[in-house]
Amino acid sequence: MRWPEQIFITEVGPRDGLQNEALPIPVEDKVALIHRLAQTGLRRIEAVSFVHPKAVPQMADAEAVMASLQRVPGVTYIGLVPNVKGAQRALASGVDEIATVVSASPSHNRANLNASIEETLEEMAKVASLAEKAGVPWCGYISTAFGCPYEGPVEASKVIQLAKALRDMGAYAISLGDTIGVAHPRQVYEMVCLFFKEVPGVELRLHFHDTRGAALANVVAAMQAGAIHFDGSVGGLGGCPYAPGASGNVATEDLVAMAEAMGIATGVDLKALVDVSWFAQELVGRELDGKVRRALRPQRA
Amino acid sequence: MRWPEQIFITEVGPRDGLQNEALPIPVEDKVALIHRLAQTGLRRIEAVSFVHPKAVPQMADAEAVMASLQRVPGVTYIGLVPNVKGAQRALASGVDEIATVVSASPSHNRANLNASIEETLEEMAKVASLAEKAGVPWCGYISTAFGCPYEGPVEASKVIQLAKALRDMGAYAISLGDTIGVAHPRQVYEMVCLFFKEVPGVELRLHFHDTRGAALANVVAAMQAGAIHFDGSVGGLGGCPYAPGASGNVATEDLVAMAEAMGIATGVDLKALVDVSWFAQELVGRELDGKVRRALRPQRA
Repeated sequence: MRWPEQIFITEVGPRDGLQNEALPIPVEDKVALIHRLAQTGLRRIEAVSFVHPKAVPQMADAEAVMASLQRVPGVTYIGLVPNVKGAQRALASGVDEIATVVSASPSHNRANLNASIEETLEEMAKVASLAEKAGVPWCGYISTAFGCPYEGPVEASKVIQLAKALRDMGAYAISLGDTIGVAHPRQVYEMVCLFFKEVPGVELRLHFHDTRGAALANVVAAMQAGAIHFDGSVGGLGGCPYAPGASGNVATEDLVAMAEAMGIATGVDLKALVDVSWFAQELVGRELDGKVRRALRPQRA
Repeated sequence: MRWPEQIFITEVGPRDGLQNEALPIPVEDKVALIHRLAQTGLRRIEAVSFVHPKAVPQMADAEAVMASLQRVPGVTYIGLVPNVKGAQRALASGVDEIATVVSASPSHNRANLNASIEETLEEMAKVASLAEKAGVPWCGYISTAFGCPYEGPVEASKVIQLAKALRDMGAYAISLGDTIGVAHPRQVYEMVCLFFKEVPGVELRLHFHDTRGAALANVVAAMQAGAIHFDGSVGGLGGCPYAPGASGNVATEDLVAMAEAMGIATGVDLKALVDVSWFAQELVGRELDGKVRRALRPQRA
């Protein structure tokens, strides 16, 4: 088998994780979570999103969070933006990187962004132009890249086509999202092989939700195809409290624990990250899915 | 990557799963669980263990469970035995297969069986002899094969040496157990490769606990080395309610869901198995870890 010497993790808990939490989380708690994550050795943190406050009330305080951050040198703070308005807010807030998003399936794109894929690509081109002028790098997220809640299977060729479009727009990285956690290792291996063959010249990231428990298996399969960039959310934050079948990203500490056990460097202090995972659980007031937190800190459970 | 066309699953929930549950579970509920599992297409079920009732009160009714089983044709009902006394009880109860157990680490063997590894091997030889006379096949379990709670890392060479001893005693199959869920994919791949090279002539099974969330990743790694026999417990039953860091086996339905999504046949009806997983959760009266149950039946959560 083929194993990388190191992997690079983007922590998405403060954004993809918290955005669906029912309990309002004060700015100072979000800032504390982000800062504690930055202190574990994580070098990329998706901190906020600049979506409409009515669409995602939990992220309405994005500017306040960015303004209150204690910046750790070497850490990239990322803001997700759905459109030009969001990009303007993000750039004004001083994010280090912008993430934009489009779905691989039309129905999900409509549900998520109220637009066709073509309309979203047009908007992303404008976002890309703004980011370029500001000298801020941007990453293109492709949601439902491995399956759609409305349409089921998604053609890999459709994902590749979108990825090429984003690369040609100037994305320095592209993240393939298994938004609903239906990806399986064979599919992931084939997709990553295809991506490297068809879309050279851009960094590939993989974003796995753990809805069916296969996220780390998918990470292993992606590594076999050469992938080294992965998203995680501390504690496995994410999912929607109103949709019990939903579930969050792979828990960052579970990813770190597996990689480090295998001799694959992550740069992250696992013990410190497990502490942050317990802190995240206190913030959201519900038991999180991550397993290593429980395994390493049984006395607290 | 290398994928098998099919895998063979041993369901261990009724034994390895239930044995640590605090809530006493009546014979009829155990029998119902076993029967419902057999009706999903699972062909191997570890139903009971014949250990001393004081050591594992939950399994004290093993004879009653075996006597009450509605046998499904083609299903192998397995009984775990720690010693000659247990083997006599198992054979008298009509099990189709015996499982014996030894740990790869002396401290765990002492804690589990109150004996040295050498003493346990002597006892296993007697069990093997009884089983052979009765015409009942037996499988040798090697616990702590990937790590020990007392001693930490376990030498692969020690595991291989034990496996050879069990094969030479007449075991038709050997199960390597990651008892505390510390195995990682690189280790699993290397162990399985070594096993096939060094211990030919015996069936290899892998038994992964999901304590750190890497069980399915370990399954994928084992498949790359050619393994096709895996244990699972419905719902991820297992672990000890008095030791919150502990956790059960990989949830059988999570294993089935991943394999079937990949086009790897399991012979199991996933939907029926998910129903049994909800039933198992009701029996034990606590939320189980398996993820696919929640993903496929959100309306019940």
